[in-house]
Amino acid sequence: MLIVAERINASRKGIREAIKTRDESFIKKEASNQANAGGDYIDVNAGGSSDEAEALKWLVELVQEATDKPLCLDSADPKVIKQVIAGCKMPPMINSMTLEPYRLEPILSLVAEHGARVIGLCQSEEGMGRTLDTKLALADRLVEKVTGFGINIENLYIDPLIFPLSTDSKAAVVSLEAIDRIMTEFPGVHTICGLTNISYALPARKLVNRNFLVCALFRGLDAAILDPTDDALYAALRSGDMLLGRDDYCMSFISAYRKGRLV
Amino acid sequence: MLIVAERINASRKGIREAIKTRDESFIKKEASNQANAGGDYIDVNAGGSSDEAEALKWLVELVQEATDKPLCLDSADPKVIKQVIAGCKMPPMINSMTLEPYRLEPILSLVAEHGARVIGLCQSEEGMGRTLDTKLALADRLVEKVTGFGINIENLYIDPLIFPLSTDSKAAVVSLEAIDRIMTEFPGVHTICGLTNISYALPARKLVNRNFLVCALFRGLDAAILDPTDDALYAALRSGDMLLGRDDYCMSFISAYRKGRLV
Repeated sequence: MLIVAERINASRKGIREAIKTRDESFIKKEASNQANAGGDYIDVNAGGSSDEAEALKWLVELVQEATDKPLCLDSADPKVIKQVIAGCKMPPMINSMTLEPYRLEPILSLVAEHGARVIGLCQSEEGMGRTLDTKLALADRLVEKVTGFGINIENLYIDPLIFPLSTDSKAAVVSLEAIDRIMTEFPGVHTICGLTNISYALPARKLVNRNFLVCALFRGLDAAILDPTDDALYAALRSGDMLLGRDDYCMSFISAYRKGRLV
Repeated sequence: MLIVAERINASRKGIREAIKTRDESFIKKEASNQANAGGDYIDVNAGGSSDEAEALKWLVELVQEATDKPLCLDSADPKVIKQVIAGCKMPPMINSMTLEPYRLEPILSLVAEHGARVIGLCQSEEGMGRTLDTKLALADRLVEKVTGFGINIENLYIDPLIFPLSTDSKAAVVSLEAIDRIMTEFPGVHTICGLTNISYALPARKLVNRNFLVCALFRGLDAAILDPTDDALYAALRSGDMLLGRDDYCMSFISAYRKGRLV
């Protein structure tokens, strides 16, 4: 499971403040904590800042000073990604692209040019993929666009989009089935998702999120956007991997236990 | 998910003592706590007592005074089950039967005579089912024996047998696949298992057990032998059910939260 560490996001109050005041040590500490806790890519998002591109450039530099992990450049605006991508020392992941032409075409160019990875959302100009059939049709179009552009399918991370259980009791089942079908039907592609939407408006959200993650692992999800410093979530991930038979002699699990992370 | 509440078992020290000293209030409290916490059947096991049948008879009476739940009669010795079954006010579940003739035949007679349910282990005179193929072959023989005896397949709960991840990293995957295949290939049959073997010799056992339960739910497991008073396990069960789309408007989940049980 590839972990995109999600904490450096301006939608979180502490990060928004740190961006505003250009608090370097705060951001560096968030970056290194997440890298040490198991993050493979460090997501950086400065959305909502009046100077989004400048702020993102600043985040990119700081994270690279604090860790040796690649970045996940997170902006709804392809122009912002374009302005900061040259500052990445390693090929980044781009978060995210949709099938909407204004986001699709510029992002595909950047992915090809920089050898980047890209998160493709099951979303087009007609809206978001809610049903299984729509998700699969949109995934098919994403694969077609990416490979048609000459980009290796292995650089594509499809996000089937997760909707809240509180408004649709089949939301988890549909997304899990979509993950399974996408992984089966498009060999080489990856699937990724965030975990928080599933529990929107419910109590005990973290409990729901981590059980959803384990279920998704079993259906083939091979990447997730999450907070690796959340020990209970990390513990669910380690036990899920072990249950899946991917942890020889249970060594990763036992090592996580010795680090006090199996809460 | 049908819950067989497992706590009244002489392998647990407190219970063994209570049986020895015939401590009625201790047993009654265990029974009512488990019934209140969500147990559907209350398992009673007096194994190892020098007077097993007498002790089990005593447990059967007490549990029926303390709760209105049916019993799960738990003994390796069919003669013990035969001696106590008449004391059950409601048709019990019998835990357990194997394909070994000395256990199979007397138990089938009791099941038929009392309209009981029965747990059938994937185990024969040649040993326990360890591989997927063996588990399925033994499940097939269990179904054949039960239905051949004129017993409704719906009274059969097949336990595929769970082996520790610590000695076989594919142990969970094999059992989960067996559950799925048994539920698909024998319509009407149930599957059941205990949760503790999977984590034998590992740290953080309860974490592993509850993640295994959620995975098993998703593969079709419809009964489990567990401790319903373990709130973290119960929380996993409630969130698993909700993720599966079986909890309309998330009402059971929210109700468990209000009772303070979503830890």
